[in-house]
Amino acid sequence: MSNRATLANAIRALTMDAIQIPNSGHPGAPMGMADIAEVLYNDFMKHNPTNPNWADRDRFIMSNGHGSMLPYSVLHLTGYDLSIDDLKSFRKLHSKTPGHPEYGYAPGIETTTGPLGQGITNAVGFALAEKVMAAQFNKDGHEIVDHNTYVFLGDGCLMEGISHEACSLAGSFGLGKMICFYDDNDISIDGNVDGWFIDDTPKRFEAYGWHVQSIDGHDPEAIKAATQAAIDASDRPSLICCKTIIGKGAPNKEGGHHVHGEALGAEEIAATRKNLGWDYPPFEIPAEVYAGWDAKEAGTVAENEWNAKFAAYSEAYPEEASEFERRMAGELPIGWDEFAAKAIADINEAAPTQATRISSKMSLNAFSPMLPELLGGSADLTPSNNTFSETSVKINDNNGSKEMNFAGNYISYGVREFGMSAIMNGVTLHGGLVPYGATFLMFSEYARNALRMAALMKIQSIFVYTHDSIGLGEDGPTHQAVEQIPTLRMIPNMSVWRTCDAVETAVSWKHAIERNNGPTTLIYSRQNLAHQPRSAEQIANIEKGGYILVDTDGTPDAIVIATGSEVDLAVKAAEASDKKVRVVSMPSVDMYEAQDDAYKESVLPAAVTARVAVEAAIMDGWWKYVGTNGKVIGMTTFGESAPAPDLFEYFGFTVDNVVNAINEVA
Amino acid sequence: MSNRATLANAIRALTMDAIQIPNSGHPGAPMGMADIAEVLYNDFMKHNPTNPNWADRDRFIMSNGHGSMLPYSVLHLTGYDLSIDDLKSFRKLHSKTPGHPEYGYAPGIETTTGPLGQGITNAVGFALAEKVMAAQFNKDGHEIVDHNTYVFLGDGCLMEGISHEACSLAGSFGLGKMICFYDDNDISIDGNVDGWFIDDTPKRFEAYGWHVQSIDGHDPEAIKAATQAAIDASDRPSLICCKTIIGKGAPNKEGGHHVHGEALGAEEIAATRKNLGWDYPPFEIPAEVYAGWDAKEAGTVAENEWNAKFAAYSEAYPEEASEFERRMAGELPIGWDEFAAKAIADINEAAPTQATRISSKMSLNAFSPMLPELLGGSADLTPSNNTFSETSVKINDNNGSKEMNFAGNYISYGVREFGMSAIMNGVTLHGGLVPYGATFLMFSEYARNALRMAALMKIQSIFVYTHDSIGLGEDGPTHQAVEQIPTLRMIPNMSVWRTCDAVETAVSWKHAIERNNGPTTLIYSRQNLAHQPRSAEQIANIEKGGYILVDTDGTPDAIVIATGSEVDLAVKAAEASDKKVRVVSMPSVDMYEAQDDAYKESVLPAAVTARVAVEAAIMDGWWKYVGTNGKVIGMTTFGESAPAPDLFEYFGFTVDNVVNAINEVA
Repeated sequence: MSNRATLANAIRALTMDAIQIPNSGHPGAPMGMADIAEVLYNDFMKHNPTNPNWADRDRFIMSNGHGSMLPYSVLHLTGYDLSIDDLKSFRKLHSKTPGHPEYGYAPGIETTTGPLGQGITNAVGFALAEKVMAAQFNKDGHEIVDHNTYVFLGDGCLMEGISHEACSLAGSFGLGKMICFYDDNDISIDGNVDGWFIDDTPKRFEAYGWHVQSIDGHDPEAIKAATQAAIDASDRPSLICCKTIIGKGAPNKEGGHHVHGEALGAEEIAATRKNLGWDYPPFEIPAEVYAGWDAKEAGTVAENEWNAKFAAYSEAYPEEASEFERRMAGELPIGWDEFAAKAIADINEAAPTQATRISSKMSLNAFSPMLPELLGGSADLTPSNNTFSETSVKINDNNGSKEMNFAGNYISYGVREFGMSAIMNGVTLHGGLVPYGATFLMFSEYARNALRMAALMKIQSIFVYTHDSIGLGEDGPTHQAVEQIPTLRMIPNMSVWRTCDAVETAVSWKHAIERNNGPTTLIYSRQNLAHQPRSAEQIANIEKGGYILVDTDGTPDAIVIATGSEVDLAVKAAEASDKKVRVVSMPSVDMYEAQDDAYKESVLPAAVTARVAVEAAIMDGWWKYVGTNGKVIGMTTFGESAPAPDLFEYFGFTVDNVVNAINEVA
Repeated sequence: MSNRATLANAIRALTMDAIQIPNSGHPGAPMGMADIAEVLYNDFMKHNPTNPNWADRDRFIMSNGHGSMLPYSVLHLTGYDLSIDDLKSFRKLHSKTPGHPEYGYAPGIETTTGPLGQGITNAVGFALAEKVMAAQFNKDGHEIVDHNTYVFLGDGCLMEGISHEACSLAGSFGLGKMICFYDDNDISIDGNVDGWFIDDTPKRFEAYGWHVQSIDGHDPEAIKAATQAAIDASDRPSLICCKTIIGKGAPNKEGGHHVHGEALGAEEIAATRKNLGWDYPPFEIPAEVYAGWDAKEAGTVAENEWNAKFAAYSEAYPEEASEFERRMAGELPIGWDEFAAKAIADINEAAPTQATRISSKMSLNAFSPMLPELLGGSADLTPSNNTFSETSVKINDNNGSKEMNFAGNYISYGVREFGMSAIMNGVTLHGGLVPYGATFLMFSEYARNALRMAALMKIQSIFVYTHDSIGLGEDGPTHQAVEQIPTLRMIPNMSVWRTCDAVETAVSWKHAIERNNGPTTLIYSRQNLAHQPRSAEQIANIEKGGYILVDTDGTPDAIVIATGSEVDLAVKAAEASDKKVRVVSMPSVDMYEAQDDAYKESVLPAAVTARVAVEAAIMDGWWKYVGTNGKVIGMTTFGESAPAPDLFEYFGFTVDNVVNAINEVA
């Protein structure tokens, strides 16, 4: 068996050699954190390389994702399906080893990292999901959910604001199974951090209620002892501050900022080999080193033990066991289709005129009794967002208690929009739960890159945004979304819904619940919106994203396309116009785009070029539908502070204006 | 003279009465922080209500901006041009008193607040600007720049991640003239914060190197002593944690979360009057209370003293004094136009083929010698962003020193994109400096709402983004901008530039430097881009945002519109095509939109409907220019990790594809 230093050097060698091929990558962190990874994987990590999806595995997250060659090396060495050829394809098109670790590419990569601070925030979501799933499913003597979340992170993650949001909340939750290793190497891209980052990080994390240790990150015994102590401190998350040398092993470059993000070069690689006593050619790992790392057998034994435990659980609690399996598989309950259809029919029957944020709660009340996997929440706007449903149970109380009820299903995230969103992504990735989280539409901007990451990872997080336009009124332009609706539509693989009444709102929720290959953004009004009458066929067509809400005999003279609060305006303008006007409601542009050409032609016939689009937002995206001869009625400036009716009048969202636009185009 | 409690109660009365009219607003914070405001303004604040623009005034920022009735009340009471009628117009269209404090509406409002955490971050910018201006202009015995920045903030600001970025950096800078009052009332919208916010905030701020005190926020003597101690601690920023009761004075509602954001109601207002012993009708302030608050006379005296000081400075240092006046007025130096024109001509002469991020540095090297007001920086990507020019001088060192050189003009902001951007906004608002700050284009998303705030406030912050598309290559989709270019274009009043070579880059910088009524976003490539030859007229037309780069004899068969790295592709396709093709380079869509119809018709004649747009980004916005019969060649998905040439090929940015598109439309 190789000694620990040799095992760790295998990471260093694979890292520098893999990065040298494309002459692009970040050797600093993998070489600096190699000793920590070696101890963590060989002494603590519960995982099975032959089944990367084992439900009760420990999770590992490289929050400093630029150091991707560390997880790639470790996954290869421990026996995952990631070959030397895969490592040689580092940063090549369609390889399993892209520049940053990407979910769905290499087995064992739990989340996509790179945008700093989000990995550790995803990890809070993983650890939170573990706590919630354990509370919901474990029984006395049957601990089927019991695993740790390990995180590597660097100075960059700790400087990012989101680390504050995530780690402060992790402290509130007392996430004792979350253990973080901080690569404290004093270096970021601009140089030695003393000029811009002098935080007393241990003190900062103690202020969050964490268990904090400081060690030498190159001393395996210290790493081992600290990891054990962190595991033992089961009532609090742990931070282990590891003093390291960036690029450790590269004799001329270690400790400097060039080793962070540049290939070492042939000469320094040769010097590093000599310095480390690593006498093997590139990509050749001696058998005894492989033997020292191989986790396949131990992992299979561990998983088999868990399988036996789960079998006993299934015996004792058959319903819970099958529910656990359903939820970890991400499947909807049997009977969902009929249940959802009935709920929508009931809401159509009720025909309420109310704010769509209220309709959203109505939808949640209707759907959630069948969906214990829903994990709701808000970034401190629960009463405004209307996200606390009749089935919601608080995890964190709002009456001055610090005690948590992890068997609940609702979280007050505090004023932490970005943190909430990236935590939700972690919850989704963990499995077993479907998170939804809310804030005002404006503050989707604080969280925007987490929405993008959900879309990039193709995962189901449900983002709920209320107060969707100038319609929020008096709070004014800082809170009035103008460009947020169209910019959210531009995120690839994001499904965006802006609904006009309770029925469309219910359909949007159904869509979000069923869409398990990407995130959904649900956009709702603060103000009341009228119910629109529809036939059964029209109700069925809502899911297609755009449909004929009001039609005319024969070929229309003009078509008005509208969304959300402007749909009723379009309907009223169609009534007031002396032209034959069709009104198309388009709650989801992306779903409309996904329809076949025949359907699209039936809604927006090419022959009818007289078109008007109306939306209380920036209109750049609507020219695609109205054409160069069409008209758009939208916002071109920021809003103002005033009551909503005054603002709609002032900014031109009036029946007269829409009628005039119809007359101009038709 | 009234006693302190009575003076403070004037804020409470004006607050509850003004909010009652629209039945909308946030009484909690103004009533809770009234005693602090009273001590701050009546015992410490250096300001002159008769001249809100006095250069050396202390700055006051309400970071918990929803509590806008506090500054409105104080500005009215101390004698600013803000009448009782203005207060009665609270939250009405086009009043001086919108729902949140907005820059440019009421005199004395230093920055627009409401999006939580950004006010305190702006304040770091104000305090930093004060330090820099003092270091650049003060002389022995002539302290013409010497003022404090006071901040009120609440739990929400402290939960937001940006507060970490800002306050950590403020600690590094040792901003001793920044003094913050934390409204520690245990309440946020979801209820008592103990369930989600258990930070030991004093300890957290000590970890940042701040001076921290904890006091009773309703005890004027304690407030006074703590403020003086904070002023005396001149080497560190100060946080005064003030234990307060939210909505203090409202007997039945104080201390609860409903008072945060709801009008008190007639009954509770009556009870509050009784409870406070405030026997006056709504909006009636007794003369002795006005007398207790009036700051006009003292402010005039203070400003006159400063004027005398500045006169002495002007006598001793006439050049510096006139430069100080020029910079505080935000004017460009005499001779700028010729200087800039020559610089652009020189760059055109040099005709380099290089990455536009390199061209950006070339522009900075050319322009910056005339512009000592430039305050550059990067969020820890200086070597990649190329923002450190030949005239740059580090304020914070990268060699392990914690000493600051505030006479410098370049900041390593650390990995803090949002913090950097909101700090830049504060620097701009302070006056005397024009900040530019850089990161990768992707991470504009982390900062997005600060960009929006700059646009909303109509202030000159210059945001520099490099690595602008899939062209960055191997770092992959987490770092490859796809939707960021078009979404930035959707922010009202944001000028967005994506340039195709060194000449366009120089013009974009000139535009950003001259545009003092709004922010500019400059988007540059990682990879090399070819120089495009141009006539003098074409060079002059670049400023118009879109112009004919390559033309054909007579009416073109087709027009190809492109930006940035795709311009050269369009030029090559025009050459390869057997049609008569015009190429329009459109580095700035907003500037093109600002041109008159005649110019636009000359560039994109209505008669030529055969149009293709090419940009390595989401294309929704281009349909406006190509029409429903046109073609767009862009991105529809996220990118991939691979070398840039492979990616351009894979995603279809090839001469063949553009030629085919031309043939399809023409």
